[in-house]
Amino acid sequence: MYQNFDAILAAAKALPVKRIMAVAAAEDLPVLEAALRAKADGIVDLILVGNGDAIRQLLTQLGADPAAFPIVDCPHEEAGQTAVSLVRDGKAHFLMKGLMETRELLGPVVRKENGLRTGRVMSHFALNELPGYHKLIVNTDGGMLIAPTLEEKKSIIENAVTTLRAMGYECPKVAILAGVETVNPKMPETLDAQALVRLWEDGQLPGCVVEGPVSYDVAISREIAAHKSVPYVHCGDYDVLVAPNMAAGNILGKCWSVTAHSKMAGIIVGARVPVVLSSRGSTAEEKYYSIALAATAAEV
Amino acid sequence: MYQNFDAILAAAKALPVKRIMAVAAAEDLPVLEAALRAKADGIVDLILVGNGDAIRQLLTQLGADPAAFPIVDCPHEEAGQTAVSLVRDGKAHFLMKGLMETRELLGPVVRKENGLRTGRVMSHFALNELPGYHKLIVNTDGGMLIAPTLEEKKSIIENAVTTLRAMGYECPKVAILAGVETVNPKMPETLDAQALVRLWEDGQLPGCVVEGPVSYDVAISREIAAHKSVPYVHCGDYDVLVAPNMAAGNILGKCWSVTAHSKMAGIIVGARVPVVLSSRGSTAEEKYYSIALAATAAEV
Repeated sequence: MYQNFDAILAAAKALPVKRIMAVAAAEDLPVLEAALRAKADGIVDLILVGNGDAIRQLLTQLGADPAAFPIVDCPHEEAGQTAVSLVRDGKAHFLMKGLMETRELLGPVVRKENGLRTGRVMSHFALNELPGYHKLIVNTDGGMLIAPTLEEKKSIIENAVTTLRAMGYECPKVAILAGVETVNPKMPETLDAQALVRLWEDGQLPGCVVEGPVSYDVAISREIAAHKSVPYVHCGDYDVLVAPNMAAGNILGKCWSVTAHSKMAGIIVGARVPVVLSSRGSTAEEKYYSIALAATAAEV
Repeated sequence: MYQNFDAILAAAKALPVKRIMAVAAAEDLPVLEAALRAKADGIVDLILVGNGDAIRQLLTQLGADPAAFPIVDCPHEEAGQTAVSLVRDGKAHFLMKGLMETRELLGPVVRKENGLRTGRVMSHFALNELPGYHKLIVNTDGGMLIAPTLEEKKSIIENAVTTLRAMGYECPKVAILAGVETVNPKMPETLDAQALVRLWEDGQLPGCVVEGPVSYDVAISREIAAHKSVPYVHCGDYDVLVAPNMAAGNILGKCWSVTAHSKMAGIIVGARVPVVLSSRGSTAEEKYYSIALAATAAEV
């Protein structure tokens, strides 16, 4: 449905209800810079949670008026819970991690009392504008689940499909990646792929199409699939590639970014709301696109 | 040492002793076409093993004179052993698979009586000319060992290093890929990487440098490594990337080929001589480069 990140930005700007992003420990220059840009471009509204003095100082440093932003001052160790409470209470629509450890934010997100759990494990959802591919494509999971079980892979698919459907996709096309198209008892990822396709056939993965096992070349190119006589319907047109394990997903994502020069947006999905959790190493552009992605995926 | 495949082609042509390639079941049009081109370009000499009538017919069809080629006629089920015997007896320097199943050739290669075994498992060695990288780079193993043990990963490294040293590299730089640079007991690939680096430090992987665990972006880019303060010496300058598992290596290799438009040559290493074993799906260019690679890696 979305061809590129310009379409994501346009969709975020066009939302009838502007999404409000709660930034946990917002006293982080690169995070604040990306959040301010998203606010200025009409993509989100902001609530800045954390060290009020530090946040105001950085806002001034970035040329913004601190008085123009809702700031919730709280001790560092409460910033995660405070931001999550804003979402729980309907005052914000999704979350972004600032100057804190990942677990300091995801801890409150999965705490039962906060009501953001869905029963599914959380997974990393990386949306890519990949040169040569005709639309945005998701790589999942390259960052959360080291060696996902079949049940966890089911969650990874459900998380991706739920996210895409919230963004407006009707029926995302999902490929389960492996090294081959044939099921081989010695290759556990091919058995998982077969089992996931069965679950989909049985109606246990609604709202999407699931095919696999599929090797990368066949997944990405209809021509190669035809040349190799692979019978899947959607080769060359998938919206989601599910990696066999985290290392493979991570290597693929980084190969796309660094070697294939894709643009990337990454969020953590599987809770009731998306979480923007960009790393130290991520670029300003990646942070900005990730905020826009989360805005289009966050429901009111 | 080699910047691109032109350098490999030049090196193959410049070998003081021209390498002789035995083609097992040579009655295969695309294989014969690549072999003839390599012969015509002065990269290899050929011995064609298999169905003599079919081979002669294809040679004629390709505009070659059947009388100009040594042909060893034999029943199909003996073609693998016959080709291997030529290597064993010093009449050929390496092997290429024609119109037969992989196991029909690798069976005789690993048969003890044939003397081609090295004690190491065999692995896939894919040499890539990757746009944006300043020299050829190896991806291993994306095709032979599904979930290599530590011992098998040691063989994968030894196989790659032995091959590159036969090609003239003095001290190949090897990176053990993972999703991160920190050793994490929950991520077996990081433990393997640590153990392999220890083996190297202990002198058990001579003739190379081994670093890891390394994530892909840091391995491929000195700038990203500096930005993330990764302390390895050779980031951005590795000759070999060792994948954590076959699925990851396979996906990476196909991403390089299909999405990053790399040129690729692939051989099976770990026996005394390289084996060219291109698949149905491989292009004419890949077959040709693979023959040239094997010629530079085959010792007299």
